Amino acid sequence: MMTKPDAPVRVAMLGCGTVGSQVARILVEQADDLRARVGRPLELVGIATRTRRDRPGIDPALFTTDAAALVARPDVDLVVELMGGLHPTLELLMDAVAAGKSVVTANKALLAQHGGQLFEAAEDAGVDIYYEAAVAGAIPIIRPLRESLVGDAVTAVKGIVNGTTNYILDQMHTTGADYGDALAEAQQLGFAEADPTADVEGHDAAAKAAILASLAFHTRVGLDDVDREGISSVTSDDIAAAEQLGCVMKLLADCRVSPDGTIAVGVHPSLVPVSHPLAGVRGAFNAVFVESINAGQLMFMGPGAGGSPTASAVLGDVVTAARNRVRGVAGPGESAYSTPGITDPGAVLSRHHLALVVRDEPGVLARIATALASRGVSIQAVHQEQFGGSGTARLGITTHLAAVAAIATVVAGLEASDDVAGPIRVLRMEGN
Amino acid sequence: MMTKPDAPVRVAMLGCGTVGSQVARILVEQADDLRARVGRPLELVGIATRTRRDRPGIDPALFTTDAAALVARPDVDLVVELMGGLHPTLELLMDAVAAGKSVVTANKALLAQHGGQLFEAAEDAGVDIYYEAAVAGAIPIIRPLRESLVGDAVTAVKGIVNGTTNYILDQMHTTGADYGDALAEAQQLGFAEADPTADVEGHDAAAKAAILASLAFHTRVGLDDVDREGISSVTSDDIAAAEQLGCVMKLLADCRVSPDGTIAVGVHPSLVPVSHPLAGVRGAFNAVFVESINAGQLMFMGPGAGGSPTASAVLGDVVTAARNRVRGVAGPGESAYSTPGITDPGAVLSRHHLALVVRDEPGVLARIATALASRGVSIQAVHQEQFGGSGTARLGITTHLAAVAAIATVVAGLEASDDVAGPIRVLRMEGN
Repeated sequence: MMTKPDAPVRVAMLGCGTVGSQVARILVEQADDLRARVGRPLELVGIATRTRRDRPGIDPALFTTDAAALVARPDVDLVVELMGGLHPTLELLMDAVAAGKSVVTANKALLAQHGGQLFEAAEDAGVDIYYEAAVAGAIPIIRPLRESLVGDAVTAVKGIVNGTTNYILDQMHTTGADYGDALAEAQQLGFAEADPTADVEGHDAAAKAAILASLAFHTRVGLDDVDREGISSVTSDDIAAAEQLGCVMKLLADCRVSPDGTIAVGVHPSLVPVSHPLAGVRGAFNAVFVESINAGQLMFMGPGAGGSPTASAVLGDVVTAARNRVRGVAGPGESAYSTPGITDPGAVLSRHHLALVVRDEPGVLARIATALASRGVSIQAVHQEQFGGSGTARLGITTHLAAVAAIATVVAGLEASDDVAGPIRVLRMEGN
Repeated sequence: MMTKPDAPVRVAMLGCGTVGSQVARILVEQADDLRARVGRPLELVGIATRTRRDRPGIDPALFTTDAAALVARPDVDLVVELMGGLHPTLELLMDAVAAGKSVVTANKALLAQHGGQLFEAAEDAGVDIYYEAAVAGAIPIIRPLRESLVGDAVTAVKGIVNGTTNYILDQMHTTGADYGDALAEAQQLGFAEADPTADVEGHDAAAKAAILASLAFHTRVGLDDVDREGISSVTSDDIAAAEQLGCVMKLLADCRVSPDGTIAVGVHPSLVPVSHPLAGVRGAFNAVFVESINAGQLMFMGPGAGGSPTASAVLGDVVTAARNRVRGVAGPGESAYSTPGITDPGAVLSRHHLALVVRDEPGVLARIATALASRGVSIQAVHQEQFGGSGTARLGITTHLAAVAAIATVVAGLEASDDVAGPIRVLRMEGN
């Protein structure tokens, strides 16, 4: 595994899009510094792309369309995976690891679904898998969770980990735009994909939540363990309600230890009080908020995406993996000794905000309060707004911590009653 | 260096104050988790203190007053240094390293003055020196700088790294208290020491700045390289001026690459615009703001002190060093290949704010502006306030980036002129 003295550490790259071309650039531009930090030169020996196409500033001789052959090259020490997707990516990386090569990847979906398999293979082979770029772009969050906080007991990790949805929600607050217009604008500006599903339906954030929860709680959390809800149902009424409550709407990845010791992992549009440090995270920025028993509250903030920030995270991993290789060692492997189990989504505790249209009559509020109390839901605040003579009123109810299933049961009952007109809008609210 | 299979990793602790007693507590309370994470039990085998005195909840048999004998014990694998001071601490740690023991320390003053010697000895012995707790308490900043950003080029690190001074300045803003009263209150509440010199004169922040700059710029920066100014001269007039300018007063540790490639490292009371992420860091919290070429702007925030947050950082290092030991490896050593040199303090560029009392006559502002221009100092904004009929006016001038020495020269000239009454107050202002 140890390279020969003075031999360069040889890097193969799979994929050369926005991030990959920045990685290739930095490997050349900062070659002297990188060599000094690794103790050997870092040499990019090949780049596999789907279609062979030159990139400005990159030696055309490096390109190949045969990823499997590149990974199999005996002179390759490190494989940097930026091609994305699950297959054949997983097979290529398993081959790399089996051949004793270390891996740096930014592929959150792959890690959330097949991380365990990869980590076990790496442990067996004595090689590294680093993936700082898979969550929150350039923000160092993997290493702090995996190493800095390893002597502590993390109780919660909450993050704004998807810049596209944060940008859209931000615009809805700032301009009053509805969801469709804000999405269209984000697409025009390149902040959202033509097919925005992975972002706006929370799939991207869910993969990151699974990775964060796995690290924070020393267990394996997969994509299927994440209770996921995107932002496509968020309306300008929701935004207005948020502002009235002194909150901002954020798509939160929320990973925490439930009172029974199981792990709750969810992605939901959430009302975040403006006093919370996450509330101030604007536009395409990301932030991760960590609570632990001894350290207390920590926050990490920075650019969550973009070619060169993500490349910074990738290169940090490349240097670390290369240093390890030069010394003939491997960094910390997966820590998944804990099997706390996943909290049933209905048993997850959260503050909630209910927005209802009710008959404007005496006794209605009392009946609603009784229905909530009968399921153990306690009310924190009520806000009522009369409509001019229409016979109905708008009611906003904020609850204390309550089980998601209890809220759903009460809401179903109320929606079936004569007191309530139309569906009740239920939103989660951050805080205790 | 590798321990025997199943043998515990044995930890000796030097010092058992606020942080040490928390470390001892966590080693017992979280023993099962720590064992699972290290792969072996962590066993606290001895605690050296100056006077032998029992601590509640800690086995009295662990205590000794003979630190040298404890460090020399052949069964000790790791030495956790929380005794502080320079001597005999340095000698004890050099002995530990020479005997093949890894070291975890929170001693910023020792590292800022003798870090190079310790790191070299550790490298020679193939052991680890970890020191996450030395800067910004529980906030993971050492590892992100040393590892996550190692593939990037950091251009600036700016931090609020002393909770005592941040608390005092915060109180001056909030309550309008002057410096003496705010200090006295902080002392009463235990946020400031009876002898507050190390905090309020910026010595503590300067040691942390030296450590941050060394890591960020891959060089050795010592305490003598830090241009240091404390907060004891900050007046309620300064605070009022800050507020009028839309700023808050912060004691900033400011480490950056100067235009000529040298490194400027300073600690100064600074006007921070409220829009800057560091402006919102309140009370005893710490935060570190990092700018790098590829990652852009990152911020790390959390509790900067306190027994249990600091213990979290120490334990993270203990687990990491113990894991390395179990695998028979060492983590990344010092990276100090770069020798950019230190920027002359007079050549450091900063925005400045000048508060002057001037004769209220035509031509005075023109002469002041001319004096500034003659030294290449360009004015960003001027704010003038008449005194009722006294013949003088209060003038506030904000400059663009200007060399500290140029400002000093102009100020000396103006103070000697008839246009200006009394001394001119000069403050640095964050931003370009």
